[in-house]
Amino acid sequence: MGVSKSLGAGITRQDRVMADGRTIRYYDTSGQARNAQDQRPVEEQPGIGELRLDPLVNEWVAMAAHRQGRIFLPPKELCPLCATRADLLTEIPESDYEVVVFDNRSPSLRPPQGDWALPDLVGPETDTGTSAGKCEVICFTADHGQSFKDLSPTRVRILLEAWADRVRELSQEKFIEHIAPFENRGEEIGVTLAHPHGQIYAYSYLPPRVEKMLKAARDYKESTGRVLFDDVVAREIRDDKRVIARNAHWIAFVPYAARYPFEIHVAPLQPVADLASLTSEQSDAFPEVALEVMKRLDGVFGIEMAYIAAWHQAPVRVGRDLLRLHWQITSVRRAPGKLKYLAGSESAMGAFIMDMRPEQSAGQLRDVKL
Amino acid sequence: MGVSKSLGAGITRQDRVMADGRTIRYYDTSGQARNAQDQRPVEEQPGIGELRLDPLVNEWVAMAAHRQGRIFLPPKELCPLCATRADLLTEIPESDYEVVVFDNRSPSLRPPQGDWALPDLVGPETDTGTSAGKCEVICFTADHGQSFKDLSPTRVRILLEAWADRVRELSQEKFIEHIAPFENRGEEIGVTLAHPHGQIYAYSYLPPRVEKMLKAARDYKESTGRVLFDDVVAREIRDDKRVIARNAHWIAFVPYAARYPFEIHVAPLQPVADLASLTSEQSDAFPEVALEVMKRLDGVFGIEMAYIAAWHQAPVRVGRDLLRLHWQITSVRRAPGKLKYLAGSESAMGAFIMDMRPEQSAGQLRDVKL
Repeated sequence: MGVSKSLGAGITRQDRVMADGRTIRYYDTSGQARNAQDQRPVEEQPGIGELRLDPLVNEWVAMAAHRQGRIFLPPKELCPLCATRADLLTEIPESDYEVVVFDNRSPSLRPPQGDWALPDLVGPETDTGTSAGKCEVICFTADHGQSFKDLSPTRVRILLEAWADRVRELSQEKFIEHIAPFENRGEEIGVTLAHPHGQIYAYSYLPPRVEKMLKAARDYKESTGRVLFDDVVAREIRDDKRVIARNAHWIAFVPYAARYPFEIHVAPLQPVADLASLTSEQSDAFPEVALEVMKRLDGVFGIEMAYIAAWHQAPVRVGRDLLRLHWQITSVRRAPGKLKYLAGSESAMGAFIMDMRPEQSAGQLRDVKL
Repeated sequence: MGVSKSLGAGITRQDRVMADGRTIRYYDTSGQARNAQDQRPVEEQPGIGELRLDPLVNEWVAMAAHRQGRIFLPPKELCPLCATRADLLTEIPESDYEVVVFDNRSPSLRPPQGDWALPDLVGPETDTGTSAGKCEVICFTADHGQSFKDLSPTRVRILLEAWADRVRELSQEKFIEHIAPFENRGEEIGVTLAHPHGQIYAYSYLPPRVEKMLKAARDYKESTGRVLFDDVVAREIRDDKRVIARNAHWIAFVPYAARYPFEIHVAPLQPVADLASLTSEQSDAFPEVALEVMKRLDGVFGIEMAYIAAWHQAPVRVGRDLLRLHWQITSVRRAPGKLKYLAGSESAMGAFIMDMRPEQSAGQLRDVKL
């Protein structure tokens, strides 16, 4: 038997150990017992990957050499994220589920053995490290054919509770510095499993973009005494023209300097550092805005948009009062038959060129009839 | 009549003005006169775009709202980069050419009118600026069906001279801070014109990646007294196992912390700041290594690889003794039917995960029979 505990909003979590030793966590509202055993043969796990410093920009690159062979867009009959059926043993031993989170079978980052530390940063002489961290998979529903926008408000509420629970628990690990739950959707951006799901990456280092956000926020605090993201949200509220959804606790807007044809930031009006810090009022108010945003996004062209939806949070140990929780949704779809590609300027130089004004995409999102 | 001048290696440059006022520059080895007139009707040019600060990371985003409608993968009979024929008036009025560079018809960045300056950086209150800069197109050959690797060594030598000439001239413009010649190749990365060509982006600000490279190089110089890139190349020569081509003046290697399934850096053994600083011996030795690298890249899977090939240089005015010229070629192709996509971790967090070790891709590149 595994751990069982009560979370917010009447949600319980029950843990089970999978055949190969990984943990699966069931997040449920109806208190059903989750006792099904993983019947699959045990596969050998590859070891932890290398962590190498790119000294030209002082960024860590995780090397996960064993992932080349992973499963690619299997047909529905072979989907490893569906519930287990008589003829199909999946990652989820139960015959049905609400929300589950389990350890990734082919993780890019793995918990280290024993003591662990990042190598000292000394340019090209920096030692090769190990890719410490943790990668988890979160399934939004057992229904293979749904999207985020089709979920019930209750389901989105469970999802939010599961994310917050994972952040709370992963933050206790000594080797974890930053946690990023995200969802990739769409073959256009390389999604290999169509089943509605997301991932949780827990890094043992500050991801480069987080490091840069932290520096900007720290500089801003030093020169103004204020929190940068709070002033960014205040400007969006004042400008109003890029706001696409809001309720008493959340606001969604296309940022003033969006980098993608469709980019939406969703933030709580009362700022918090991370998912684990949300109040129950904020959490209860999230599904309404989240579902509206996702419906607007798919409504623009009447097709399922490829997107990346990532939670930005304050890191686990630093900048807790400098960085704020927000959900960033970006889509490379700029027209029904056209994608924005990151080519020479964006990819090699990091210099983004936007082909459409944020006020235009905000207008298109607002004009969608729900 | 336009300007005519002699460059290195017996190459001459002749300038002509296009119907709409843009300049086209012919780089030739055989001294032929380039007098053909652009017969096309004049189109109105949109104005300069906006430049907006993304305050969360202090990066400029150029807004080029008028580019949505640009031509997308036209058939060969309508290619605007072919030479002009009786039935097709293209960007190049002549009936044949060697290498040409002309001002981009739909530039993301435009020369500013009168005095110009970046807005002061004050977080979310930063003023909206204008996307000053210059975008040019460089055609490698009049032969629509060729690739870089099919060019003759003489043609690559002209190309290098044309790049250096453009860097020399664009560096004189007061509003230009950084120059990046690059080539995007392959529909997989969004290339809209199949004709072999590259682009030259001249920015009025330091692109974010350049800014970060500059900071790393400055910190390294301060702590060690040495130039970072020189030590990076020294490490690659010492390790040897990732070197894939070299001659007396150039070396090509897969970097120790490559971020893409195939990534190659090509650098002169005697370091220089930019293309305009190359000696004639270095320039004469470049085609051999450049062609070998491109042939190895296409040879790995026996298919035309999608790639971005970008020249990194020292900025025009700062860090001249800190950053070094190198040519970075990256490909997202990880197997014949598979691409690497930049999804949640790379795109939202900036944290790269590599699915294969650089030593493996270097081995594959070295094993190609030329």
